[in-house]
Amino acid sequence: MRNHKDTKTQRKAASRNIFAAFLCVFVSLWFQSFAQTRATVERYVSEHRPEILAELVSLLSIPNVASDKPNIRRNAERLREMLTRRGFAVEILETDVNPLVYGELRVPGASRTILWYAHYDGQPFDAKLWKQESAFKPILRDGRMEDGAKEIPNFSSLKTYPPGARVYARSASDDKAPIVALLAAIDALPASGQKPKSNVKVILDGEEEASSQGLISSLPKYKEKYRADMMLSLDGPLHSSGRPTLVFGGRGIATIELTVFGPKFALHSGHYGNWAPNPAMDLIRLVASMKDDDGRVVVEGFYDDVLPFTAEEKRILASVPDDPKELMQFFGISRTDKVGGSLQEALQYPSLNVRGLRSAYIGSEARTIIPDSATASIDIRLVKETDPDRMIRRVRDHIRKQGFQIVDSEPDDATRAKYPRIVMVRSGSGGATFAGTKAYRTELSHPVSVEITNVMQRTWNEMPVRIRTMGGTVPMAPFAETFGFPIVAIPVVNFDNNQHSENENLRLENLWNAVVTFAALLTM
Amino acid sequence: MRNHKDTKTQRKAASRNIFAAFLCVFVSLWFQSFAQTRATVERYVSEHRPEILAELVSLLSIPNVASDKPNIRRNAERLREMLTRRGFAVEILETDVNPLVYGELRVPGASRTILWYAHYDGQPFDAKLWKQESAFKPILRDGRMEDGAKEIPNFSSLKTYPPGARVYARSASDDKAPIVALLAAIDALPASGQKPKSNVKVILDGEEEASSQGLISSLPKYKEKYRADMMLSLDGPLHSSGRPTLVFGGRGIATIELTVFGPKFALHSGHYGNWAPNPAMDLIRLVASMKDDDGRVVVEGFYDDVLPFTAEEKRILASVPDDPKELMQFFGISRTDKVGGSLQEALQYPSLNVRGLRSAYIGSEARTIIPDSATASIDIRLVKETDPDRMIRRVRDHIRKQGFQIVDSEPDDATRAKYPRIVMVRSGSGGATFAGTKAYRTELSHPVSVEITNVMQRTWNEMPVRIRTMGGTVPMAPFAETFGFPIVAIPVVNFDNNQHSENENLRLENLWNAVVTFAALLTM
Repeated sequence: MRNHKDTKTQRKAASRNIFAAFLCVFVSLWFQSFAQTRATVERYVSEHRPEILAELVSLLSIPNVASDKPNIRRNAERLREMLTRRGFAVEILETDVNPLVYGELRVPGASRTILWYAHYDGQPFDAKLWKQESAFKPILRDGRMEDGAKEIPNFSSLKTYPPGARVYARSASDDKAPIVALLAAIDALPASGQKPKSNVKVILDGEEEASSQGLISSLPKYKEKYRADMMLSLDGPLHSSGRPTLVFGGRGIATIELTVFGPKFALHSGHYGNWAPNPAMDLIRLVASMKDDDGRVVVEGFYDDVLPFTAEEKRILASVPDDPKELMQFFGISRTDKVGGSLQEALQYPSLNVRGLRSAYIGSEARTIIPDSATASIDIRLVKETDPDRMIRRVRDHIRKQGFQIVDSEPDDATRAKYPRIVMVRSGSGGATFAGTKAYRTELSHPVSVEITNVMQRTWNEMPVRIRTMGGTVPMAPFAETFGFPIVAIPVVNFDNNQHSENENLRLENLWNAVVTFAALLTM
Repeated sequence: MRNHKDTKTQRKAASRNIFAAFLCVFVSLWFQSFAQTRATVERYVSEHRPEILAELVSLLSIPNVASDKPNIRRNAERLREMLTRRGFAVEILETDVNPLVYGELRVPGASRTILWYAHYDGQPFDAKLWKQESAFKPILRDGRMEDGAKEIPNFSSLKTYPPGARVYARSASDDKAPIVALLAAIDALPASGQKPKSNVKVILDGEEEASSQGLISSLPKYKEKYRADMMLSLDGPLHSSGRPTLVFGGRGIATIELTVFGPKFALHSGHYGNWAPNPAMDLIRLVASMKDDDGRVVVEGFYDDVLPFTAEEKRILASVPDDPKELMQFFGISRTDKVGGSLQEALQYPSLNVRGLRSAYIGSEARTIIPDSATASIDIRLVKETDPDRMIRRVRDHIRKQGFQIVDSEPDDATRAKYPRIVMVRSGSGGATFAGTKAYRTELSHPVSVEITNVMQRTWNEMPVRIRTMGGTVPMAPFAETFGFPIVAIPVVNFDNNQHSENENLRLENLWNAVVTFAALLTM
């Protein structure tokens, strides 16, 4: 029995050893495979830089502010053509607003499908603030404009580029570069004897900078098209350290606008000051009651839904290489709010931010009046656990507790006569009527999260920065809710790209690296 | 001795009786004299209404916004001519800004001199909001526009006017009507066999609505011209009850603008909300700390300089026929601040009023940002006892106690790095550089206050409403300080004249009564 037992144990040990050996071989092959992909794709890129850049420049030359319908349509047509050229089956999907460009590339033998998301519209801007002829006439600079970089003339004839070169144009980073990089990756694979391992679905949003309403409202209609095993979002910048970055969640947003009413018309502050109540002061006292001196929200229950972090989550949050001192210096601030022990922890909580204040006039326009009203515009960032409606309800309850009557429109005489303090509360997200955008988060322990982390680590030979929930809002939650699939954002563009601002730019190095990253993900 | 004593006592009693009898005769004559003046002037007015109105309409037809230099000059020239026609020695006094019109009418045998003040400039306005072709093309309506009154065409050919008729034009009430009424009173006296008893000096300000800087800065230069025994200011409306009104003081004003600094540039509220401090919130918490929930200022020492009212002052304050319920209904408010037990008491205290708030954007312009700064514009109304500089010092001390570093200009990087809370404080009055305007008050017990009160009471057969200190600010304090003479304001225009707003108007009845009031004061 004992022998028999020993034999059994030996056999077990042997099979374990064999399994371990196979695993080693498999893992090292897998490692090697990503290293190889990187090497071959980098070679491809180094030989095709002018063509890749030319395709980007050509796409950037089509104006793409969401409200410019004819040019939005031109962008969509161009993208249809760019995808078709790569063998995609392409459709322009009409929505209530701007069209979506949808493409499908079937890979024989593929066992799963990845839905890639990007957007082709860009932020509106003030043309006067651009240091070039037009935001839609891309130029190349030999570095960062703010550091004094000079324009490189006739760059289309170049074969190589200075190391820090950047292309300047609206949407250079946000979000046309990732589209061009993804298509370059698809070109690169066969050229280096490889091919995608998953079916590729691409959905290109024409209105991300104007709330993605078309995309979201089209979800029921095009549900079958969007179905996939995971979604990769190609939007947003790398971590400020410049290291490869993965983002597993985004905060949601709810907005709330408070208008406190005073006298029916502005009163002379001399004749009635000390007697007629001032709505600006009432608003100030109301909003002041919502937070403490350290920036923590004191609205009852505001943080209640947020679960404590696990030890692993704490470790990952702490591993993000933020440099708060440098950030504070860059921003010119010498204190921070005290929500969470660090920037990354702070972003895992909902926030309440006064984004705008308005009452009567200031400066040379100031008039000695008691204003008739005062308004505060507030945004509430949400995390996965905090439902927008519940959060707004909590704020409304808090407002009532401060002695205010909440109204939905300008109060009539009877309402004014009845309530000493009256505030109009309008809540939504972006516009006044659009309900809040929810947050989303794919757990870092999800197999897809682990797999993508590994692909990135193998490709770049370093652990990527993992952002559990980024602070900003992207329209991913409806996809997560509809399909239940994991969503991971793969940012590729430089942190200092002046996104949403004037003189937006893309470091070319980030474009070349993006092709490698996407190629690696296509072959995972 | 006893008899002698009795005789003495009898003599004393007799002389007392004689004195009393003389006093009675004198007083009744004096009474009668004002009743007679009123009767004769009213007769004169009733016979000259079209001419008086024509002179007003003609003056109102010259645009008079202080910044419109050519037209301001035309007004001054017209006034020079109007005064000259009445026998005044007239000079146009140049100042650093707009000219003053100064006239002197010497009365043979006069034992005192009265300086009459009015202004000929008018408030700027939005032309689109006037319900007539032009604010400088006067029209006549058969009542109050807001009550549906209709325009009376070709009113210049009329000899009589509907009872509630009003002339609509910029400065109809504020402040050209009093000038025309004073000149009509000067015309009326000789026509009814009377003449002024005091020398008449007239000073007409060309820039009252833009801070009276020219007038005030000209004080040292023209000191001898302005010297008089008293000053009567012909500005402002009657008490809302419509009763004859006297005003013995005006609050002063100091202004203070607070700009709190956040990050050097607006930050994405998603990426940094909960971490980067929000300047709008800091400003809100700072301003909220200045007042309690009942509108009382809690800045240390704010009310310390105000003396308790005497019993007589309390009585006079209480005698003002304010109707707070009606006012509250008119304004659409259902509570008042709790400074003083009544509106009149409230106006005897300094006030702190948030007149404007601004930070980033609201409504459809709102952007999801942490603003880079937030500004509150505040006016502090002063009473005679509260020195502007001392009051501003108290507010600055309060700001420091809230943990803010006060700066004079935008903070540099070193300042930003050093102080967690930074606020730029700019104080002044009106503009950013002009020091505060002080309050003034002539005691109600001053012989001139008593005399004018009596004249008004005799003329109109009722006690005038006596305003100890009105809420608004007029540029009288420098005159009171320079000459030490009593200053009393004699408002004559209707309360609901839309002063400083669009569709300014004057009830004609108020114009006719003003001629009587001024004639009575000219003969006192």
